[in-house]
Amino acid sequence: MGDPQPTIDQPVRLEIDPNGEMTGGSRRYDKLLGDLEGLYRDEDAYRALLAERGADALMYYVYDQRYQEGPGALIVGTSTLLPGTVGDEYAMTRGHLHAISDRAELYYCLSGHGVMLLDTIDGRSEAVELTPGAAVNVPGEWIHRSVNVGDEPFVTLFSYAADAGQDYGIIADAGGMRTRIVTDGDGWKQVPNPTHVGYARER
Amino acid sequence: MGDPQPTIDQPVRLEIDPNGEMTGGSRRYDKLLGDLEGLYRDEDAYRALLAERGADALMYYVYDQRYQEGPGALIVGTSTLLPGTVGDEYAMTRGHLHAISDRAELYYCLSGHGVMLLDTIDGRSEAVELTPGAAVNVPGEWIHRSVNVGDEPFVTLFSYAADAGQDYGIIADAGGMRTRIVTDGDGWKQVPNPTHVGYARER
Repeated sequence: MGDPQPTIDQPVRLEIDPNGEMTGGSRRYDKLLGDLEGLYRDEDAYRALLAERGADALMYYVYDQRYQEGPGALIVGTSTLLPGTVGDEYAMTRGHLHAISDRAELYYCLSGHGVMLLDTIDGRSEAVELTPGAAVNVPGEWIHRSVNVGDEPFVTLFSYAADAGQDYGIIADAGGMRTRIVTDGDGWKQVPNPTHVGYARER
Repeated sequence: MGDPQPTIDQPVRLEIDPNGEMTGGSRRYDKLLGDLEGLYRDEDAYRALLAERGADALMYYVYDQRYQEGPGALIVGTSTLLPGTVGDEYAMTRGHLHAISDRAELYYCLSGHGVMLLDTIDGRSEAVELTPGAAVNVPGEWIHRSVNVGDEPFVTLFSYAADAGQDYGIIADAGGMRTRIVTDGDGWKQVPNPTHVGYARER
């Protein structure tokens, strides 16, 4: 009698504020300063910030909406990355490669000023600047992270395949991404990361 | 020595205006009044509009960005649906079910006032109202079309899997969707469509 019919999800209206609040979604998660051990190059600056603000200081948060995890489903949400620096590095997310590495991800900037930092395992690096109304459709096979180079929260709307998953360890295992985004007067610049030892699949 | 490595696409920055213009994409296509034969219920009103405005009158247009069509790629773009009515029906897109029917699609409203009209083959119908900042993550298996119920262009940002494809014939073959969105004083209402004969897979 064939496979049972899968349940078809009910469409839900989402309300998305340029400040990153989203209603109609299913989940919010917070990333705190204490979760980001090892992310920034300047460990002394990280320890000093931890002493000053505490491990519970909010660094970024994500709202998302998930239906059942069918192969064709999309996860939609907002990411809000608070501004700041640790040493000379701008605030950033942990970053990831999708566990199914050919899965793309759309980021559309709702507010703030950020950079999408991108590496391929085989040696390419890019930095795409995002301001409100700009977007980047991150192709498959690109490790990517958001960096806030402005004074306000950097907020993006994102969507990606529900089966994509995230591999966060690939960056930590490599000593960080190939480049870092650091202060340059009032602006930002992309510099080589001397602690980067190559991604696992190229070692 | 194994499969050749696929080419990895280069990330491209997109600039998206709330009026629907998009730079950085690869394509624009226009849908003209003459292309929409059979879409509206009131054939006399359609013929009159055709006589008045001509077959080349622009009704809606789409910008999109496509990389290579890998299984994990996303197509990203904007849809701009011009306002108006044909008889008592508000301006609408042809609508589609994805050819791979479990593929979802995100629509995020950039400007204007619209309705996402949705049907499942097995009998469910929904109408999700969209104004700037609202979005709907259309789940797989939902036939969907945009309707402009406002006085200005209705503009959405969309993303969907590059392998999804579109089946437009499913609506035409069914005599239209299960409901129509018509004028109701200054507003809109959803009414049953008497010409709908059921979708092919349920007949």
